[in-house]
Amino acid sequence: MELLKERIRMDGRVKEGNILKVDSFLNHQIDISLLNEIGREFKHLFDGKKITKIVTIEASGIAIACLTAQYFNVPVVFAKKAVSKNIDGDVYTSTIKSYTHGNEYTAMLEKRFLTQNDQVLILDDFLATGKAQLGLLDISRQAGATVAGIGIVIEKGFQGGGDKLRAAGYDLRSLAIIDSMENGTLCFRE
Amino acid sequence: MELLKERIRMDGRVKEGNILKVDSFLNHQIDISLLNEIGREFKHLFDGKKITKIVTIEASGIAIACLTAQYFNVPVVFAKKAVSKNIDGDVYTSTIKSYTHGNEYTAMLEKRFLTQNDQVLILDDFLATGKAQLGLLDISRQAGATVAGIGIVIEKGFQGGGDKLRAAGYDLRSLAIIDSMENGTLCFRE
Repeated sequence: MELLKERIRMDGRVKEGNILKVDSFLNHQIDISLLNEIGREFKHLFDGKKITKIVTIEASGIAIACLTAQYFNVPVVFAKKAVSKNIDGDVYTSTIKSYTHGNEYTAMLEKRFLTQNDQVLILDDFLATGKAQLGLLDISRQAGATVAGIGIVIEKGFQGGGDKLRAAGYDLRSLAIIDSMENGTLCFRE
Repeated sequence: MELLKERIRMDGRVKEGNILKVDSFLNHQIDISLLNEIGREFKHLFDGKKITKIVTIEASGIAIACLTAQYFNVPVVFAKKAVSKNIDGDVYTSTIKSYTHGNEYTAMLEKRFLTQNDQVLILDDFLATGKAQLGLLDISRQAGATVAGIGIVIEKGFQGGGDKLRAAGYDLRSLAIIDSMENGTLCFRE
């Protein structure tokens, strides 16, 4: 998606430890017009697939999932990251190791919001090693739901998670794949 | 907002400790059509006000803020709740005590995303004692931004936070105000 790559080139900032910061438009401040274009592109890429629900994980996946869901006319359900008084009994859980935050957390999703009748589109802002996506796939498997596809805004291709998911047979589409970001220079996969 | 009250009556569940769960349509699973109507209503309520940015706090405020922002044509910026490698240097912070989660956390917002030139609409899903909103007001004050208004989807009127904010002069609009929820029966303020 050329518009997105241009925006990453213009406003993305490469930080130590292969961290790409896109927080001026994607995951802290949010450019709603850009996210609408992203939603339109996901609709185009997954058009023709039967999708009943968009699944993501808090927090930065929520904006992408909600704006994209408008093009699919389906509800969003987002996995939560922490134990709180507001989550009760019947939940699916999966443990995820976060590359960005350097810790482990449990993703939780209430069982009544994902069932074997669901055809799921998993959406997220980043894919690096693929740990968060594996967590959502694990939860979908527990629910007996069918995974129709995985849509990612920015894939760090050089971390390998995306290619592993493709090799496992998932229909994974990333709007921008970064193959290297050495010395602060971004190289996108064509 | 009658549509919202009807939905709360139909799908809301009252739990021990005056907790109202609306996670089948507002803050776990998200009904995108309803949130679009909510966005339209906020636009109607705050119409004519100059607004340059919508400010909220992760996680459940993000969906409401993003869908509403489409009607105002402005960016969203959401305060983050935890320290992560992805937040760097120049941030505003405010400490917030959570009623729902029974803990304290720090809300953080990067300084470059909120300035004295901003006219802010603060949006959130719930207002109870008003602690989260006070945190966002504190951050807006630190930024020198003007608070044009506060929009809340569900206000727990009986917890008093909303009336305190109104008494302090804020233009606070709540789409549904619950005056009591004793014995599981919801009473809305007319």
